Amino acid sequence: VKVLRGEKIGTLFHKNASLWEPSKDTSVREMAVAARDCSRRLQNLTSEERKKILVDVADALEANEDLIRSENEADLAAAHEAGYESALVSRLTLKPGKIASLAKSVRTLANMEDPINEILKRTEVADGLVLEKTSCPLGVLLIIFESRPDALVQIASLAIRSGNGLLLKGGKEAMRSNAILHKVITNAIPNNVGEKLIGLITTRDEIADLLKHDDVIDLVIPRGSNKLVAQIKSSTKIPVLGHADGVCHVYIDKSADMDMAKRIVMDAKIDYPAACNAMETLLVHKDLMKTPELNDILVALKTAGVNLYCGPVAHKVLGYPKADSLHLEYSSMACTVEIVDDVQSAIDHIHRYGSAHTDCVVTTDDKVAETFLRQVDSAAVLYNASTRFSDGARFGLGAEVLA
Amino acid sequence: VKVLRGEKIGTLFHKNASLWEPSKDTSVREMAVAARDCSRRLQNLTSEERKKILVDVADALEANEDLIRSENEADLAAAHEAGYESALVSRLTLKPGKIASLAKSVRTLANMEDPINEILKRTEVADGLVLEKTSCPLGVLLIIFESRPDALVQIASLAIRSGNGLLLKGGKEAMRSNAILHKVITNAIPNNVGEKLIGLITTRDEIADLLKHDDVIDLVIPRGSNKLVAQIKSSTKIPVLGHADGVCHVYIDKSADMDMAKRIVMDAKIDYPAACNAMETLLVHKDLMKTPELNDILVALKTAGVNLYCGPVAHKVLGYPKADSLHLEYSSMACTVEIVDDVQSAIDHIHRYGSAHTDCVVTTDDKVAETFLRQVDSAAVLYNASTRFSDGARFGLGAEVLA
Repeated sequence: VKVLRGEKIGTLFHKNASLWEPSKDTSVREMAVAARDCSRRLQNLTSEERKKILVDVADALEANEDLIRSENEADLAAAHEAGYESALVSRLTLKPGKIASLAKSVRTLANMEDPINEILKRTEVADGLVLEKTSCPLGVLLIIFESRPDALVQIASLAIRSGNGLLLKGGKEAMRSNAILHKVITNAIPNNVGEKLIGLITTRDEIADLLKHDDVIDLVIPRGSNKLVAQIKSSTKIPVLGHADGVCHVYIDKSADMDMAKRIVMDAKIDYPAACNAMETLLVHKDLMKTPELNDILVALKTAGVNLYCGPVAHKVLGYPKADSLHLEYSSMACTVEIVDDVQSAIDHIHRYGSAHTDCVVTTDDKVAETFLRQVDSAAVLYNASTRFSDGARFGLGAEVLA
Repeated sequence: VKVLRGEKIGTLFHKNASLWEPSKDTSVREMAVAARDCSRRLQNLTSEERKKILVDVADALEANEDLIRSENEADLAAAHEAGYESALVSRLTLKPGKIASLAKSVRTLANMEDPINEILKRTEVADGLVLEKTSCPLGVLLIIFESRPDALVQIASLAIRSGNGLLLKGGKEAMRSNAILHKVITNAIPNNVGEKLIGLITTRDEIADLLKHDDVIDLVIPRGSNKLVAQIKSSTKIPVLGHADGVCHVYIDKSADMDMAKRIVMDAKIDYPAACNAMETLLVHKDLMKTPELNDILVALKTAGVNLYCGPVAHKVLGYPKADSLHLEYSSMACTVEIVDDVQSAIDHIHRYGSAHTDCVVTTDDKVAETFLRQVDSAAVLYNASTRFSDGARFGLGAEVLA
């Protein structure tokens, strides 16, 4: 474990001395109230001024790269010592070049269109009486995220750009990385806003306490396991934005371009099987059964190492083992295949067994696409594109985090 | 109490016989699930088809006016017998011409722009990859409303236009009026959608039960007392859209056109003092103290019968009695007057003591207006217009109900 170098601490923490001590004298409610007060001052800045803060944050990240990496190495050393599995250690690691790429993404965000104070609708409701609907910040967000410390940078930058206050809780295995990133970022926030704009929560008890303050916190976003999301939802009156399940479907219509269908299915399943937007169920129009084109797709999945399971109808035709359930998130190299009569029965299947996350139709028939896009009640509905595109950064919203 | 005429019942209730018996065999959960299923079919209709339903609803209201009025009279007779206060009886009454005006408002709603399937944003995120953000229905709404039976018509029409399923609970004193309006409206819903699109809840127990089904109901809108709203909020995991308090402010800046300020203050306080958007607190820039123009406004309020109370600063200057609290909703011919240093301290006062409902600035200074409009964290922020304009119908949103 490397030791922190004194001068940098001196440079970094001139406003407030203690680095590792979470300020025990401040109650969590006071943290929330302070974040709200700071957010109101932030909202009063111009778009250019909020941009400037992000540019300063990006510069500060780069200027403090050594310090950040040494703290990250300390977390990694502790994780190795604790015997954490390699996937977790990998997510925890800030790889070489990561700080530079984070700084770059913060600068990109700085240059995006201002998300607040945008006039969404303008109507003259009576002579001289103009009604405007404008976008505005949400207020104070409580965000609970996983082990990836880079998420802290993305979330904090989005909050600064959009005029929101933040309370952040990261994974305990990334404690030192998060603490240093938090310090670097909040030190770049000017005094006329206040560094308490972004509070760092370090214990689960504090979360339980914060969840009671529905008069100060406007939204909770838990990013993590289904269990975490369900637990947060059941223990607060604050609105919770989160999805527990990601049972995503690809429906191949009889009118589909089967070469395209193959590319979409392979990408949706194989690109990153553990992702919440990976395909879990492949629905196929009944007319495609026993065609060489469908067979080609199934063989390609098998060849790539995907274990195929079947719904009750497909089981009789294809003979792969029956899936335990039609609402199943494998999060691995496996998927369920089922046969449906038409687009309507595909939609019914998705409503019955899906999770309203991301669902896709592959078709060359505009009417089928229209029906699917209009009727499927999911956050993202895709037409001739892989479910993997369902992602805040790919949607051009600045980062994956708040999609 | 008039007796229902057989033929009309025959015409009206051909799909399902019993009028007064709430279907006890259907559990409330089944009602919610049915509303969701019907809403999905409704969502699959074209805008023209949804319009057509509303036109049919309007026709059905007019065709059944006698029947509706006789049921309303039965409610009124029962209310008189129970000795209800006259304000409640007045809200309960469908006055002559009310059915015609309701039918007219339903037709107006039919002709408004389609609120769903609107493309809100369209971006080409990569070559050939187009991202669209579209407006869509919320799903199933549970709406609890007060004694005014006309609210049922407004809410139901908005739901039909916007592709949502509904569960409605009206006041028990309007039971028969609500039942007949519900029947008239649902009978106008075509079979390819299903009359169970709109369920009528008749008991409080059913509400308590419904509030548990957060997997089927998407939003609860309680319209009623602060107590009702608070109680609903504390007993469900379903998101609740509702405001408990309406402590609305008018801030008169030193730059205000004082003639305009007078008209706004008088309208905001006197037009309908019991309304949630009536002015409760008048904030005045310190430079206006002891000016004849401000005196003129205060005298006009007094002359109109408004009891004036003061915040601590104004009390010393103006001498009216101190208000019990600065967060006070009089809902009557009374208001608090307080002096503030400038627009910033007016904003701070509003954030501290207001209810984030509706607040207004009167000024001729664009910068002051901009600061107020941007910073005040309320649902509606008004600039040189009375707080009474904060209303769904006046905002051109089709009805007062879902503003």
